Amino acid sequence: MNILVTLAYDGTQYCGFQVQPNGTSVAALFQDALQAVLGARPDIKGCSRTDAGVHAAAFCLNFHYDLRMPVQKLPLALNQHLPDDVRVLAARPVPEEFHARYAAHTKTYRYRIRNCAVDSPFESRYMHRIPRRLDDAAMNAAAAHFVGTHDFVALCAAGSSAAAHGDTVRTITDCHVERYGDEVAISVTADGYLYNMVRILAGTLVQVGEGRLSPQDIPAILQSKNRKNAGPTLPAKGLILEQVHYDLE
Amino acid sequence: MNILVTLAYDGTQYCGFQVQPNGTSVAALFQDALQAVLGARPDIKGCSRTDAGVHAAAFCLNFHYDLRMPVQKLPLALNQHLPDDVRVLAARPVPEEFHARYAAHTKTYRYRIRNCAVDSPFESRYMHRIPRRLDDAAMNAAAAHFVGTHDFVALCAAGSSAAAHGDTVRTITDCHVERYGDEVAISVTADGYLYNMVRILAGTLVQVGEGRLSPQDIPAILQSKNRKNAGPTLPAKGLILEQVHYDLE
Repeated sequence: MNILVTLAYDGTQYCGFQVQPNGTSVAALFQDALQAVLGARPDIKGCSRTDAGVHAAAFCLNFHYDLRMPVQKLPLALNQHLPDDVRVLAARPVPEEFHARYAAHTKTYRYRIRNCAVDSPFESRYMHRIPRRLDDAAMNAAAAHFVGTHDFVALCAAGSSAAAHGDTVRTITDCHVERYGDEVAISVTADGYLYNMVRILAGTLVQVGEGRLSPQDIPAILQSKNRKNAGPTLPAKGLILEQVHYDLE
Repeated sequence: MNILVTLAYDGTQYCGFQVQPNGTSVAALFQDALQAVLGARPDIKGCSRTDAGVHAAAFCLNFHYDLRMPVQKLPLALNQHLPDDVRVLAARPVPEEFHARYAAHTKTYRYRIRNCAVDSPFESRYMHRIPRRLDDAAMNAAAAHFVGTHDFVALCAAGSSAAAHGDTVRTITDCHVERYGDEVAISVTADGYLYNMVRILAGTLVQVGEGRLSPQDIPAILQSKNRKNAGPTLPAKGLILEQVHYDLE
């Protein structure tokens, strides 16, 4: 049986999803929970890596296993062996050939900014704070310029293997900015992401929000293919994987 | 100068606002911060006590002090001496006779329920989880029966001094229930509250949501003036002081 599992996690304490030489990964915790429940450690395929400190509202992974319990009982069983900041939300059977990474046609990330002089005691681990009032309408106008199929190498951290291989064309199907009171949220949906791409895109939009760039500067930044023309890489803690989109019934 | 300060805090670690013989109170932390910034420890008046573990989005307090800095600078100065889970949001001068408790004509509390089989890794400290699907429409119909001026002794924890003095009539000006996806939120606005009143009111509404009580049972529960006829006291962690209403310009 091929099983698709949806996880939510607070990434603050973790080195990302993928197992790393140093630091605790969400994947390792999940495999420990599988070991405790199933007595086995099947290979798991994650939908993405996620950087250290990045959060997920609905991370997807799959693994093959001859399960002897109803799949619906898996979330509660696994949650008993996971820390509070990692929760299994759902588990369901999927076709044998399904792969959590390759079957994803798009993924949606959100970058959350607290646009306020003071942190929230409830959400300071999930939002990057910028005290000065941002022009969210200008940010939203700039965001529209990212939509489409482009070479996004200007938004890729130096030293990435995708950049080394010239594999830096991606398609952003949606990018928009909304304000909810003191929160400015950047939403991006794309078929794939380069290393740190959302955090650099968010840093570039913040420069628009601060009036240091105009929305019309975005096409030239992309065309320059030069990382130095884009904005800074914002901190991991404001980033959350919101949704992974599959064609599943 | 009489100064009105608005605080937000995550109450998880604290014994409530008021200084208590055992446990750390938010008031003590705030006075320590005043001591660090002003070199003095003026007497502070809080808008309410709040129980151990209860949160506040906008707790109000006031104190008299001959301030030698612009009052607008007080939040940032105090926040440097407060833990991350207690934040000063604002400070402003108010008339000399203003008292944060007696000047409040109403206060709004929210009780947040996660109506889902699995906790959220982001909000498990701020929501009480009930796995079984609640009938939020029935809860909202029941909530309307609490609105008005009533003797709320049936919703008062045993051993309260208000109950001992027969001072248990309060006016609820608004009480409603809304569902936001997996969240069911109970909002109550009243001119005053008895000990554990919102948590017992919420526990009673949950019994309606579970089909164990009907909305039409609420008037009889109030009229019985018997705590045993109301629902259980829900845990503190789901409760948050949302807003304190003053007639200030």
